[in-house]
Amino acid sequence: MARIGILGATGYTGVEISMILERHPEAEVAFISSEASAGLNLSSVFPRLSGCRKVNALTLRKAQDCQSVSVDAVFSCLPHGASAEACLPFAVGGAAVVDLSADFRLRDPEDYPRWYGKPHPRPQSLADAVYCIPELHRSRLNGRKLVASPGCYPTSVLLPLVAILRAGLVGAGPIIADSKSGVSGAGRKATLEYSFCETNESLHAYKVGHNHQHLGEMRQEIAQWGAAPQLVFSPHLVPMQRGILSTLYVPLAVGATGAKVRAALEDTFRNEPFVKVLSEKDGLPATAHVAHSNRAHIAVSSLPDESMAVVVCVLDNLLKGAAGQAVQNWNAMAGLDETMGLTP
Amino acid sequence: MARIGILGATGYTGVEISMILERHPEAEVAFISSEASAGLNLSSVFPRLSGCRKVNALTLRKAQDCQSVSVDAVFSCLPHGASAEACLPFAVGGAAVVDLSADFRLRDPEDYPRWYGKPHPRPQSLADAVYCIPELHRSRLNGRKLVASPGCYPTSVLLPLVAILRAGLVGAGPIIADSKSGVSGAGRKATLEYSFCETNESLHAYKVGHNHQHLGEMRQEIAQWGAAPQLVFSPHLVPMQRGILSTLYVPLAVGATGAKVRAALEDTFRNEPFVKVLSEKDGLPATAHVAHSNRAHIAVSSLPDESMAVVVCVLDNLLKGAAGQAVQNWNAMAGLDETMGLTP
Amino acid sequence: MARIGILGATGYTGVEISMILERHPEAEVAFISSEASAGLNLSSVFPRLSGCRKVNALTLRKAQDCQSVSVDAVFSCLPHGASAEACLPFAVGGAAVVDLSADFRLRDPEDYPRWYGKPHPRPQSLADAVYCIPELHRSRLNGRKLVASPGCYPTSVLLPLVAILRAGLVGAGPIIADSKSGVSGAGRKATLEYSFCETNESLHAYKVGHNHQHLGEMRQEIAQWGAAPQLVFSPHLVPMQRGILSTLYVPLAVGATGAKVRAALEDTFRNEPFVKVLSEKDGLPATAHVAHSNRAHIAVSSLPDESMAVVVCVLDNLLKGAAGQAVQNWNAMAGLDETMGLTP
Amino acid sequence: MARIGILGATGYTGVEISMILERHPEAEVAFISSEASAGLNLSSVFPRLSGCRKVNALTLRKAQDCQSVSVDAVFSCLPHGASAEACLPFAVGGAAVVDLSADFRLRDPEDYPRWYGKPHPRPQSLADAVYCIPELHRSRLNGRKLVASPGCYPTSVLLPLVAILRAGLVGAGPIIADSKSGVSGAGRKATLEYSFCETNESLHAYKVGHNHQHLGEMRQEIAQWGAAPQLVFSPHLVPMQRGILSTLYVPLAVGATGAKVRAALEDTFRNEPFVKVLSEKDGLPATAHVAHSNRAHIAVSSLPDESMAVVVCVLDNLLKGAAGQAVQNWNAMAGLDETMGLTP
Repeated sequence: MARIGILGATGYTGVEISMILERHPEAEVAFISSEASAGLNLSSVFPRLSGCRKVNALTLRKAQDCQSVSVDAVFSCLPHGASAEACLPFAVGGAAVVDLSADFRLRDPEDYPRWYGKPHPRPQSLADAVYCIPELHRSRLNGRKLVASPGCYPTSVLLPLVAILRAGLVGAGPIIADSKSGVSGAGRKATLEYSFCETNESLHAYKVGHNHQHLGEMRQEIAQWGAAPQLVFSPHLVPMQRGILSTLYVPLAVGATGAKVRAALEDTFRNEPFVKVLSEKDGLPATAHVAHSNRAHIAVSSLPDESMAVVVCVLDNLLKGAAGQAVQNWNAMAGLDETMGLTP
Repeated sequence: MARIGILGATGYTGVEISMILERHPEAEVAFISSEASAGLNLSSVFPRLSGCRKVNALTLRKAQDCQSVSVDAVFSCLPHGASAEACLPFAVGGAAVVDLSADFRLRDPEDYPRWYGKPHPRPQSLADAVYCIPELHRSRLNGRKLVASPGCYPTSVLLPLVAILRAGLVGAGPIIADSKSGVSGAGRKATLEYSFCETNESLHAYKVGHNHQHLGEMRQEIAQWGAAPQLVFSPHLVPMQRGILSTLYVPLAVGATGAKVRAALEDTFRNEPFVKVLSEKDGLPATAHVAHSNRAHIAVSSLPDESMAVVVCVLDNLLKGAAGQAVQNWNAMAGLDETMGLTP
Repeated sequence: MARIGILGATGYTGVEISMILERHPEAEVAFISSEASAGLNLSSVFPRLSGCRKVNALTLRKAQDCQSVSVDAVFSCLPHGASAEACLPFAVGGAAVVDLSADFRLRDPEDYPRWYGKPHPRPQSLADAVYCIPELHRSRLNGRKLVASPGCYPTSVLLPLVAILRAGLVGAGPIIADSKSGVSGAGRKATLEYSFCETNESLHAYKVGHNHQHLGEMRQEIAQWGAAPQLVFSPHLVPMQRGILSTLYVPLAVGATGAKVRAALEDTFRNEPFVKVLSEKDGLPATAHVAHSNRAHIAVSSLPDESMAVVVCVLDNLLKGAAGQAVQNWNAMAGLDETMGLTP
Repeated sequence: MARIGILGATGYTGVEISMILERHPEAEVAFISSEASAGLNLSSVFPRLSGCRKVNALTLRKAQDCQSVSVDAVFSCLPHGASAEACLPFAVGGAAVVDLSADFRLRDPEDYPRWYGKPHPRPQSLADAVYCIPELHRSRLNGRKLVASPGCYPTSVLLPLVAILRAGLVGAGPIIADSKSGVSGAGRKATLEYSFCETNESLHAYKVGHNHQHLGEMRQEIAQWGAAPQLVFSPHLVPMQRGILSTLYVPLAVGATGAKVRAALEDTFRNEPFVKVLSEKDGLPATAHVAHSNRAHIAVSSLPDESMAVVVCVLDNLLKGAAGQAVQNWNAMAGLDETMGLTP
């Protein structure tokens, strides 16, 4: 039975991790941290956690006050910047650390200030971390103690795209990722922008093209596959709570076809319990097909002249795009069945 | 052509008044105020007002800086407390003032601190104001310069209830008003409570029974009809933007019946363009039936033993429950057709 | 390991039962029936069941073709009328049958045609069945093979109301239950009425007062507690998928108080893992607090003169109000821990 | 005062036309047709039209029974196939006909069966019709009696794209239009697919790439601008009622820049009351900015190397994307101010 700490337990990903660990047969919860709600019980902040015995046995404490708790693993749901500082001591102390923030995702220390507008708090530690979507990168784990667990947009784009790039099917020209996310992707915030009346019955684009901070890690992860393709990324906010859908427009190499793209995806994910490649008769995926699960569904279409594949990937931004993937990463690090505690 | 000022133009009711005045053939806009957005154009705060020529010809100013503008009428969408102070000088100066806040709704100066937790800023002015739902109280206007225009919950309850009380059909026992409101009723606020992820796919009750501050004005308005009935009021927040539905459980007097209740409502509202009493074959109303209009729809049902009527009233909380009713009140004060500028 | 059949697996409650049984350590699935989708795989109808290994090992068959399958228990999610005929043979054959339809809820054979407009298909079997909300009636199970598992509206009303009646705290006068339900309560239907554009951003009342078919079973279950109180019930449809909130207005007996009502609820549900009675400082419940769980949350308020209690109960209409309660009933019948497979 | 007929008045676009004509000072309504609801009043089908005096003075009749009514103009909201047959006699009789269906949008008679799967009912009439988005094509009207008024997807794509093509700014390579629509775009239908519980909290793609029937008219309208660009179009369904947002990825010609694209849009739409080109400081548009109005908002961004522009266009699918544009077209045909009756 592993002793687990959750840094930043009062955000939406912290809530999901609490619910997953409640069902996880090999996990007990050793601490839960919150700066704003220290001293409270987690279910008094989130009454829907009332049935979660493990977290409710504890009181929220400030992150600083959790540093001395003995743990086997830590999930950090803190914002970038704060996360690195809070979770590094645990990694140094030998615990497995799964960081859900962006702090350890970029290998090149110069990338961080470019995308996040400030210097990295601990650039010397970047080399100790690995970026890991288990289905694509689990061999990277290999004894590492510090894992950067990717979030919703990058997972929805990279899961299909890396598999297609590896198969050598991508041709010249820009790859376009048009992504649409539910509102929980923006986190738990008291802002006018995400208030019900400003968000409901409305859809908008933001940071279209080349501006979004997650482009850095996506470009890093596709850069290694032959000639670096140009990735254009446009996120959109959709009036729903959960779910992300990315539509990828991928120029195909000479000789490549939609059928070959699907075959490459099927080969890559054949034995993966959390990735389903849809057949032609399955049609196209909807975010509701993966809500409250750790699955991603991927569909492929192509133009009649096979010049371009249109690939659609859906996942639950809070699970496969955050908390679920983080636990999956920890399961892998801990030598457990990757599906443990997770809803397939 | 009347010159109109809007105090507090950047709340949701201010937006609706701006849109109504745009269509109003007898209104031009003389000033628009905002404390937080002074110096900006209203459509830069609300791009959906881009087509409103009248307000876009102006720059938002602080309320204080609008006091010297010459106007024929002022709508105050300021919060209670602030509203009284800002709009009284206009009334003193001879302008027609329609106050959408609670500041002039309670006649008894001792009622205000009871419901709003602080002394009234100008108790001596209460006697100058009248509380007016036009369909029930337009005779009160009678040359008055200061009108307290009731909001969404009271209008949805009083519109049917006063008509039924006037007809002498209410028996002994408590009257229950179970009300359900869309989220815009809470105003434009950057709070966690009204964020999309906390509000969507959820429904909750609040201040049930005897606690809500609007009970004061509702009790005041029904108190005059014979033996004071006991009013129990429970508001609920529904995951939709607009609309309010109140379900009233009204004990019937001996000899009263559901049919007589409907007849009394039909008599009261027969010539009212904004109130529709549904017939039995019309069925029950939905908030969507009155969305974006200034109408209220009312339906009546009763128990087989005619001991109780169940009355359902719907209206758009931002129009008949706020901005629309305010303009209707001003139309009446100004001697214009009450429907002018309003969507029937 | 019990062998379970699901009659009517392609409705929303069938889907939930499939997901619960997937996690249930003592259940395997022996058949899944559907008239319209016989021959298909359940996850081809509901791609979100793609991860449910147990149901996906099977093909949907017509109910008739499942009669010969050997099972230990059957859940019937068929509509009333059809359900009695399909599930009785299993009960006769010795299987535990949990009927989620209304077919075995009314003890008096004359009640059924009154509320459902047609004769009961098997009136002679009514005496074999018991109506069971486990927290209130589990002693009734006592070896029975046929359980009528109550649905969402009655569970949300009876759970608090029976506890309060048992404690002798209810006074004279009508009890009012004003209930608000998410749209999934209406089932999976291709109708204009429940289409997104007719339902979203709208709220309506229906069958208010004395007309709704679930009044029959609610009146039956409260009739035994002293002088039969009059129950008035008004359901409303709320634009959300899941969740039900019932607001009860309960006249109090002389000497009864809100505090005594809360104490009676706490006494009744103290050791119940699925019912939480909120303290005063917990505030009022929201449907999101119980979404995707088998819990009900109950709060109590009362008028200053203690003449009436206002009780609010929330639950997930598809779980504690349908599939979750059905599995809870089966767990109890099978001598298993009642929480097995269920999300607390 | 023109006498207007509405064919197919009980769909969502018919409802919007009824509301626009109610406010239109030069229109009276001469007939309203419906096959399914003939004999009824329109507000008994849509209670929210209760305040529309013009349509409520009439009874719905079957389209066939309206042929003899003398009218100056007809709006056809009938489905494709049925529309051509019903509205041609009016055009022959001299009335102005605005067809909102696809029947007269494709000039080449061979295009129709390709996209609609059946022969055109009156191919010989295609030459009499013009395809008209007023801001782009009003010179085509020029005395014509039969106008094909484009729908939501094509208007949101063509409005910006034709303006950019005309300016010669588009380079080689595919143009991608990734469009997201609210559910009312699918019409008023009793299907499981568009039921609340299947649609809410879900987002899906459909007919991605090259399959959607509206590609025919979009390709037709861009084909004339130099070397025919390849248009890839992927529609998505978003859980909201109204609104459409199209994100266009446009390869730029050598020397073209985002700034030049914005300048070309500003030049084209400078005097258009219904099209707003956003400045850089305006940010990106949201569908709520244009809901319930006849406006379209367009924003431009470009990649740092100016190889591609990302253009975002939003409009209300039922107004600028259907009923509003149809009335705008009729206003232009009738020599009236194009904005008459419409909300700017």
